[in-house]
Amino acid sequence: MTIHNRRIVLAARPRGVVTSDCFRIEDQTLGSLESGQVLVRNHYMSLDPYMRGRMDDAKSYAAPQAIGQTMQGATVGVVEQSNNPQFVVGDSVVGMFGWQHYGLSDGRGITKIDTSKIPMSAFIGVMGMPGATAWYGLNRIIDPKPGETIVVSAAAGAVGAVVGQLAKFKACRVVGVAGGAEKCQLVTETFGFDACIDYKAGRLYEDLAAATPDGIDGNFENVGGPVLDAVLRRMNGFGRIAVCGLIAGYNGEDIALKSTRSILVNRLKVQGFIISEHLGDWPKAHAEIGQAIIEGRLLYKETVAEGLEQAPEAFIGLLQGKNLGKQLVKLI
Amino acid sequence: MTIHNRRIVLAARPRGVVTSDCFRIEDQTLGSLESGQVLVRNHYMSLDPYMRGRMDDAKSYAAPQAIGQTMQGATVGVVEQSNNPQFVVGDSVVGMFGWQHYGLSDGRGITKIDTSKIPMSAFIGVMGMPGATAWYGLNRIIDPKPGETIVVSAAAGAVGAVVGQLAKFKACRVVGVAGGAEKCQLVTETFGFDACIDYKAGRLYEDLAAATPDGIDGNFENVGGPVLDAVLRRMNGFGRIAVCGLIAGYNGEDIALKSTRSILVNRLKVQGFIISEHLGDWPKAHAEIGQAIIEGRLLYKETVAEGLEQAPEAFIGLLQGKNLGKQLVKLI
Repeated sequence: MTIHNRRIVLAARPRGVVTSDCFRIEDQTLGSLESGQVLVRNHYMSLDPYMRGRMDDAKSYAAPQAIGQTMQGATVGVVEQSNNPQFVVGDSVVGMFGWQHYGLSDGRGITKIDTSKIPMSAFIGVMGMPGATAWYGLNRIIDPKPGETIVVSAAAGAVGAVVGQLAKFKACRVVGVAGGAEKCQLVTETFGFDACIDYKAGRLYEDLAAATPDGIDGNFENVGGPVLDAVLRRMNGFGRIAVCGLIAGYNGEDIALKSTRSILVNRLKVQGFIISEHLGDWPKAHAEIGQAIIEGRLLYKETVAEGLEQAPEAFIGLLQGKNLGKQLVKLI
Repeated sequence: MTIHNRRIVLAARPRGVVTSDCFRIEDQTLGSLESGQVLVRNHYMSLDPYMRGRMDDAKSYAAPQAIGQTMQGATVGVVEQSNNPQFVVGDSVVGMFGWQHYGLSDGRGITKIDTSKIPMSAFIGVMGMPGATAWYGLNRIIDPKPGETIVVSAAAGAVGAVVGQLAKFKACRVVGVAGGAEKCQLVTETFGFDACIDYKAGRLYEDLAAATPDGIDGNFENVGGPVLDAVLRRMNGFGRIAVCGLIAGYNGEDIALKSTRSILVNRLKVQGFIISEHLGDWPKAHAEIGQAIIEGRLLYKETVAEGLEQAPEAFIGLLQGKNLGKQLVKLI
């Protein structure tokens, strides 16, 4: 049985801003499965800010990907054919098959998931890399104490929304920063943050100061630039900043900071991390998040683009902050 | 017996750059000792960059000092009178008597020192706060491994010179950054750094890159600004930056950084610290440094101003980087 696969490859590296001509759709035919192989039909694929870094041929936290290669990324789907005794047709699995309809594996790099209580798409969101990222940065770097004030940038995004909810579980005051009234409403009304600052409103520092009357003890930073500068000015002594992303500079520009004196004056710890280097914490993170989802205590939001062909536009929108919550592409 | 004391008080807060009219000399008469009191004749007083922060009425790592108050700081001297059984006339002691000839204590805040093998002046330098600062930042934050490359800014200063020598003991490649050829010569020839970059030569990044062919694993940062920016661009994965001082901004200006992306890309830990909050490590630090001094393995340099009246000019010079090694004022 011949399998017709469609995929999106990196056609050209972006010059600054990502444009649609960085991508190219390719159709291909997959042959029969070899012994041990598994064929997965991807149902959802993930779009994440880290993919932007891989599109450049520069040193970043993600290795650059080759021109002509399938765009990389997490996927979730269902086994359609199996020559591997560990997988049967119908198994739901997460993998890293990237921007394409099908994935072929020898069994490595795919993991069976239980979708009986948690929807499949969540396994590339709150139950996947973004959830683990939120958990790790909050618990292993910020390590919040009850009553502390935690600020989360990109609070309406896949990671930020989880950070804030986990911090609320720890009895913190949680303040989000997001772009626009709609996102701020989601952050406070759905995700239960105590406050959310709309950085597009033009009063970033003043609004942040008003929302953090006792200063800031922990910051989960996804943005950098002026947002981080405002946060630095509000940090308390011995504050911790987990640097998860610097989306302010994803197009290659410098990310200038002015208030670096705060690092010294307030004896801050500012630490960057990449979640793929901390795989040992993923099970603990997902056990905690999964339980909270099942109990209805942790909510998540998805923005779903329909069809592989929409992936480039959805990805460009993600980099512009157009998504609410986790940006997915539904493939089937 | 009447004691005539001379002291220097903070006359006015600086507006930006410190000028001599920020200080005022005052003469006063001290009465007889009360029960339990000790009178110390200060022989040397310390001038340190942190004093600049205290001159401002702003949040800094050192609490502001009041107008009209004696300029604060570490001193070393000899007991001249004692009504306290724990001290006898002739004891050498370190204290925090500040910019004045005499100090009066009830016995608290002064510590006897053994000057038989190490000169008295060292106890407010390598064997005092600056030495503890060097030891703590290097060992507790940078935690260098053999073969790693460590960069130290203000390398010819009281702290930097010790950091570099301690890092050499740990078999690191050690590169200093200092201002001017004379300082760089001291750093390499006397203190034994592998290289020293003259940041005034106008090729900061290029020279730093040439001196750190394997990148930078640890940075002991005393300066901030363009020096720290150049260092950030050379950092390796999982590098550690101990932020000890940001002398680039001591006059109140912002300390802008451009290369903050490196914190994320290289998963850096950037941590500020203030040595007075880590008193528990001082004995260990001084035991190690003292032993190395006695064995002739650790060298230090002092710039000595003669007489209390020279303190303001010497302090202003310190902030301008005119000193080589530890800046002292000899009082007697």
